[in-house]
Amino acid sequence: MRATVMYGAGDVRVENVPDARLVEPTDALLMVTSACICGSDLWPYKSLPPSAKGRRMGHEFIGVIEAVGRDVRTVKRGDLVVAPFAWSDGTCEFCRQGLQTSCLHGGWWGGDLDGGQGEAVRVPQADGTLVKLPVGRDDALMPSLLSLSDVMGTGHHAAVAARVGPGKIVAVVGDGAVGLCGVIAARRLGAEQVILLGRHPDRIRLAKDFGATDIVSERGEEAIQRVRDLTGGLGAHAVLECVGLEESTRTALGIARPGGAVGRVGVPQDEMIPASSATFFGNITIAGGPAPARAYIEELLPEVLDGRIEPGRVFDRVTDLDGVPDGYRAMDRREAIKVRIAF
Amino acid sequence: MRATVMYGAGDVRVENVPDARLVEPTDALLMVTSACICGSDLWPYKSLPPSAKGRRMGHEFIGVIEAVGRDVRTVKRGDLVVAPFAWSDGTCEFCRQGLQTSCLHGGWWGGDLDGGQGEAVRVPQADGTLVKLPVGRDDALMPSLLSLSDVMGTGHHAAVAARVGPGKIVAVVGDGAVGLCGVIAARRLGAEQVILLGRHPDRIRLAKDFGATDIVSERGEEAIQRVRDLTGGLGAHAVLECVGLEESTRTALGIARPGGAVGRVGVPQDEMIPASSATFFGNITIAGGPAPARAYIEELLPEVLDGRIEPGRVFDRVTDLDGVPDGYRAMDRREAIKVRIAF
Repeated sequence: MRATVMYGAGDVRVENVPDARLVEPTDALLMVTSACICGSDLWPYKSLPPSAKGRRMGHEFIGVIEAVGRDVRTVKRGDLVVAPFAWSDGTCEFCRQGLQTSCLHGGWWGGDLDGGQGEAVRVPQADGTLVKLPVGRDDALMPSLLSLSDVMGTGHHAAVAARVGPGKIVAVVGDGAVGLCGVIAARRLGAEQVILLGRHPDRIRLAKDFGATDIVSERGEEAIQRVRDLTGGLGAHAVLECVGLEESTRTALGIARPGGAVGRVGVPQDEMIPASSATFFGNITIAGGPAPARAYIEELLPEVLDGRIEPGRVFDRVTDLDGVPDGYRAMDRREAIKVRIAF
Repeated sequence: MRATVMYGAGDVRVENVPDARLVEPTDALLMVTSACICGSDLWPYKSLPPSAKGRRMGHEFIGVIEAVGRDVRTVKRGDLVVAPFAWSDGTCEFCRQGLQTSCLHGGWWGGDLDGGQGEAVRVPQADGTLVKLPVGRDDALMPSLLSLSDVMGTGHHAAVAARVGPGKIVAVVGDGAVGLCGVIAARRLGAEQVILLGRHPDRIRLAKDFGATDIVSERGEEAIQRVRDLTGGLGAHAVLECVGLEESTRTALGIARPGGAVGRVGVPQDEMIPASSATFFGNITIAGGPAPARAYIEELLPEVLDGRIEPGRVFDRVTDLDGVPDGYRAMDRREAIKVRIAF
C-alpha cells in the first residue's frame, strides 16, 4: 500500500510500505477515506533529524472497516468510523475517567505503526478507539466529522481546561485550525467575549464567522496590553494556548486575570513553562495537554451532524495522497490553514 | 513602639519604630497579642540584600482593636481579631469571588506598612480584612486560631487547588508548617491516602498524628519512584507543593498521575516551572498561589473552635518579641518548625 513517510525536516514522501493487516484479535483493519495534515506535523517538518528509516505520518482519519479481529465487538466490516488521534482500550482506569490519551494500553499513530496519511491502517484496540459514523463516506459533512479526530476535540479541550463557561471572557492564542476550533468551543460553552490573537486575514475572517468578538494582531507585551484594554484592565478569565512556543505561552499567562486559567493544547516546544511570579501571585491555573478526543466525540458529534457547529471550515484545501508533500509545504508557508486528504 | 526589622540576610533586629496610627477612615489600629514567624520569612532571611532602611516583618497576627477610623463598621475597639496575611477591601471583583489576595485595593503587610512582628499594626481596609474571634486573648486555642492567618489557610488552599476530595490519593511535598497543615486539610477533605515527603523525625511524627498514612524521605528521582510504588505505579491524584524550590516542584509534578493536579503554595524561587513533557502529555494541572486565607477563615474557624482540627500544633516554640531574632535562627536551622510570638 502507499503511505506518507517523513525522512527528516522538509523531507516528506509518499511511497510503498508493507500492507496494513490484522495482528492482534482486538485490531481492526481500516481503509482510509479521509485524512489530513496537522499543525503538530509541522514541528517534525521543521526539525526532524534525517533518518534512513523514516517516520510514518498522520493521526487524523476516517475510514471504512475492511476486517476485524475475533475479539472486536463494536464495529464490523463495512462500517464508516472516525479515529481519534490516540488509540485506547476504553476500559482502563484513565479511559474510564475520560482521559484516553493516558490509556494504560494505548498509544499514538505513526512511528512504527501505520499513520492516517496512508491508504490503510491497522487500528489497535478497535473497540475502545473507533466511533461509528451514521453517514456515508461521501457525506458533505466529512470535513467537520474529520475534525472530531483532533482539532475540534483539541479546541474543545483547551476551552474545558481553561474553564470556559457562560458569561466568561475568553482569549485564544493562535489562529491555526486548533485556535479556530477553540473559538467555536468557547462560544458553544457560553463565552460572552472571545478575543482571538492572530494576524492572518483569512483566519481572522473565519474566526469572526465562528464568533470571535475581538481580534488582537499585536505580539508580546503589546498583545498583553491590548487584551488588558479590551477586558477592563483585568485580563481574560480563560485563555486557550493553541501554539506551544515559549512566547505564546508567556502571552497566554500574561493575559489571564487573577484566578483565571490557561488551557494549553499546543504541543510545548520547551521543557520549562515561563511562568513569572505574576502567574503564581495571581493564582492562575495552567491546565491542558493532549485532548482526549475520543471522550469528546459523543458530545460533539450530534452538533456536527445537525450543523450547529462547522469545524470542517478550517480545511481550506483538499488534495489526494500524492499531494501530501505539497500540502505540508503549503501549511508550513501558511498558504493553507489545514489540508484535507481525500482518497 | 517596638517592631521587627530585617536589614539584610541573617540581620533581624527588634527596635523602636514610629508608632502605628490611624491614617485612612477605613483603618483599624490593633495591638498585637499573638504573632509568628513564617517559613516564607526565611527566604529574605537567606537572601535579602543589605539596606539601611530595612524591611518591617510579619504577616500573621491576632490582636485587640485599639481604635477604628470613622468608616469602619464590622469591628470596634476591644474586639479580638485575626488578620489574614494579605489585607483586602472585601468588595472588589476579586474579593467577591473569594480571591482576596488579588484585591484591587489590597496589599501585603510589612515593607513600608507595619508588620505583624511588632507591638501594633495599622490595618488598612479593616472591614474587609479582619475577622472577630469569639474568645478571649489568652484562650488555649490561640495557636490554632493564629494559624488561620496563614499556614492552615495555605495548606487548605494547596489541597483545594490540587482538587483533593473523598477517596483521593494525596502527596504533600514539604514537611514545614504549611505541609503539615496540608496533611490536615487533605484528611479533612476526605483523602484516603496521604503521603508526606519529608525527612525530619519531629515533623514526621506530627504528620502522622495529623493523618499522614505514608512517609517518603527520599529525594528527587528516588522519591518519585517511592511514591509510584505506593500508588500502584500511577502516582497521586493530588499533590500539594509546599516548598517552592525547583527540585521540589519537579518532584511534585513527577509524582502526579495523569489527569491529576499540583496545588502549589510554596513561594516559587524561580521564574520558570520545570514542567517536563510528561506534565503536558499527562494533562497534569498546575494550580495554586498565595492562599486567600481571608476566604477560608469562615470555613475553618468553627473546626478550630470545636477542636476538630488542631493546626496550632505546628508551633513548637514560643518567644516574646525580644526573642524574634533567635526564632528566625532556630527556624532557619530547622531547630523549630514554627515559632509563635506571645506579647
